[in-house]
Amino acid sequence: MNIHQHTFSIATRGRGIYPVSRQIQNWVREQKVQQGLLNLFVQHTSCSFIIQENADPDVLRDMEMFMQRLVPDGDPQFRHIDEGPDDMSAHIRMALTQVSLQVPVQHGRLALGTWQGIYLYEHRLQPMNRHICLTLIG
Amino acid sequence: MNIHQHTFSIATRGRGIYPVSRQIQNWVREQKVQQGLLNLFVQHTSCSFIIQENADPDVLRDMEMFMQRLVPDGDPQFRHIDEGPDDMSAHIRMALTQVSLQVPVQHGRLALGTWQGIYLYEHRLQPMNRHICLTLIG
Amino acid sequence: MNIHQHTFSIATRGRGIYPVSRQIQNWVREQKVQQGLLNLFVQHTSCSFIIQENADPDVLRDMEMFMQRLVPDGDPQFRHIDEGPDDMSAHIRMALTQVSLQVPVQHGRLALGTWQGIYLYEHRLQPMNRHICLTLIG
Repeated sequence: MNIHQHTFSIATRGRGIYPVSRQIQNWVREQKVQQGLLNLFVQHTSCSFIIQENADPDVLRDMEMFMQRLVPDGDPQFRHIDEGPDDMSAHIRMALTQVSLQVPVQHGRLALGTWQGIYLYEHRLQPMNRHICLTLIG
Repeated sequence: MNIHQHTFSIATRGRGIYPVSRQIQNWVREQKVQQGLLNLFVQHTSCSFIIQENADPDVLRDMEMFMQRLVPDGDPQFRHIDEGPDDMSAHIRMALTQVSLQVPVQHGRLALGTWQGIYLYEHRLQPMNRHICLTLIG
Repeated sequence: MNIHQHTFSIATRGRGIYPVSRQIQNWVREQKVQQGLLNLFVQHTSCSFIIQENADPDVLRDMEMFMQRLVPDGDPQFRHIDEGPDDMSAHIRMALTQVSLQVPVQHGRLALGTWQGIYLYEHRLQPMNRHICLTLIG
């Protein structure tokens, strides 16, 4: 059993839900680990991971609609406002989703269900460069 | 140190919070791993895991009451509605709870606190068959 | 590759967001593990972990303001009320954040981003003694 680690970055185009399954699946396959556990960790406090349905794009749109309503940008009760109306809301969205995510590896691949996709959820409005650290044990 | 994996399924009777600690505890014990880390992963996008108090059933009822209020079924702003009013709400409930959960193993058992139970949270109204993948490293 | 485990407790002073990065970082360094994955697990159902911005204290204040509004203490629809108005709200806050958290270890240290801090989030109003179990694989 070994540990494999890899850090890479993703340039987002601002707030949105970005698919990352394929890129991560490719790296996992290259490690030639048949059975194991993968951790994804994002080294930021205003983006996060979600697993969500990968078929109908309306799911991602409805997810974002809900998050905008749940955590309104520019909430008048926010005091942390120096970086704009989406700064504190991004921190809260992150805390309600996943900064760290584990996915089992079976037969050399991520053991995702048929409808599961892994997404990087960018909560800031402007484009950002996001660092993701992968750790594979197996 | 080794990796042990096991996939099993649970037939839910529709929306609700189902205890799974005992079943998982039994499998962990059979692996004869004294010290380790267990991952639970559910291969779906409309159910999830929560750890919650295992003593008073009102806790689970209040949890579900809260989730129904937070993520209303049949929200008029949802566009992903083909599978019914509980489809998109189930995807959001899942994203706000845990699709993947880690629990340490000590002395051959899950190191849960006295009041902690592990639950599979079915978010769809109808009965479903849910696949859970266990990965034990230790 | 080995597994290192350590359980310790933190005395909270009631509801609030308590930094624990330094204490955990110190333990990780002592294990002399260059590359690995750390799990933090809290053995309770009314406190949790969050990763949050470590620079401006207003972020933690706004986070708590948001949680109080999202999950009101003394909600008249709660039935689990024997331990006070903050009991059920604490269970829900816990379920919406992290009872278990993974952080990669690189070069013998937690691979946190510059602005990331790890916090124990106490959701009960009164001071509590909280048990945290660390599991380091590497």
